[in-house]
Amino acid sequence: MLKDNERIDDLECRGYKIIQNPDGYCFTSDSVLLANLAYAKRSDRVVDLCSGSGVVALLMRAKHCPKETHEIELQPRLADMAKRSAELNGLTDVFVHNADLRQATKVIGGGFDVVTVNPPYEPAVKKDFYTEQDICKTEAAISLEEIIACSSSLLRYGGNFFMVNRVKRLSDVVYFMKKYKIEPKKITFIQPKASKAIDAFVVEGKLGGNPGLTAPAPLVVYEENGDYTEQARRLYGK
Amino acid sequence: MLKDNERIDDLECRGYKIIQNPDGYCFTSDSVLLANLAYAKRSDRVVDLCSGSGVVALLMRAKHCPKETHEIELQPRLADMAKRSAELNGLTDVFVHNADLRQATKVIGGGFDVVTVNPPYEPAVKKDFYTEQDICKTEAAISLEEIIACSSSLLRYGGNFFMVNRVKRLSDVVYFMKKYKIEPKKITFIQPKASKAIDAFVVEGKLGGNPGLTAPAPLVVYEENGDYTEQARRLYGK
Repeated sequence: MLKDNERIDDLECRGYKIIQNPDGYCFTSDSVLLANLAYAKRSDRVVDLCSGSGVVALLMRAKHCPKETHEIELQPRLADMAKRSAELNGLTDVFVHNADLRQATKVIGGGFDVVTVNPPYEPAVKKDFYTEQDICKTEAAISLEEIIACSSSLLRYGGNFFMVNRVKRLSDVVYFMKKYKIEPKKITFIQPKASKAIDAFVVEGKLGGNPGLTAPAPLVVYEENGDYTEQARRLYGK
Repeated sequence: MLKDNERIDDLECRGYKIIQNPDGYCFTSDSVLLANLAYAKRSDRVVDLCSGSGVVALLMRAKHCPKETHEIELQPRLADMAKRSAELNGLTDVFVHNADLRQATKVIGGGFDVVTVNPPYEPAVKKDFYTEQDICKTEAAISLEEIIACSSSLLRYGGNFFMVNRVKRLSDVVYFMKKYKIEPKKITFIQPKASKAIDAFVVEGKLGGNPGLTAPAPLVVYEENGDYTEQARRLYGK
């Protein structure tokens, strides 16, 4: 089941495993955070965009058991690993699509109840050749605006959108969400420590929702001494 | 100098005083927060919008001594009090304009280095008659979008914009700032206590600025026991 250099990691959630290749892109704690703050009902159809090795989709499946979980990933090597991870966990309701997001509605239709996405955070830098990591981390292959436009077209009216991003992109995220009619309803800000600046956030939006945002007390990940905070331990299930 | 029911309050900053009328609208701690997080250079021309009794303008003048400080206030009674407050403090470089914001550039021109504004937070409710407070607190007389559009037309390219608002309006504020080319550069979030949700924020933007936002550790106003935090004491000069 494993190809060269691949390894199997434990997701520490219902015994789910994931295949990753340390030579390429491996998931970060941001994806775990997104999956822990997003939610879905058992009757929901969920789609994870820029899904990479499938960590967000697998955790959503593990925690919320939605009716269907779809993943859309542009890069064949990552999509291939994600397919084998779904098989490894015996999941027949997780569907991995190796496709360009801009073609998403042609590939999987629309009317989804939930969209999750951990997008590239950085603007693209001009290069002759983009590595797997470049495409995962920068807007080399797709822009933030295109990702949000695509999310909007995949959601049913009233459907929920969840995105994790860096705080430096907050205004772009909010602007494009409103432009494509996904109203920001809740933002959870993340601080590495209580004394440090906010560095990331998870936004929850609703297609066609009414304006009105809430922001709970920020999630502080570490105590000043470097231990996990109780809040983080609860969220990450540590 | 005082009219019926008016009183003189001490701004606790360089001995500045302010005239207020407790029968009408009196300033809140949000205005003090805005004035304490905004800044200006001595060579700057500053304008405060929705200026009310003039608290933000007076505190900006007290702390930063800009070349000129202008106030624009729609309601004659508030503008009249603000004029007398400027005189009371012997300030000849503080100019109070009783005008509709939509006419602001006709009244005071443009090219300002700094715009500050504590706008109405609430959407308008239909009524036969709006009180002074209604006009200060709701969008009865002017909308958030109009206020931000007007701020954009008053600023010089590269000039700074500072607004305080409630977190429920965060996405509207960010959306309209970007629509009118005022790029959000820094947001300071406010929590009443560390255990409580974020309830307000002060945003700093730059006309024509590049995207890229920072958000320092939120300002927590009170300790759990109700005392001011050290951070709040420092900011409010208590």
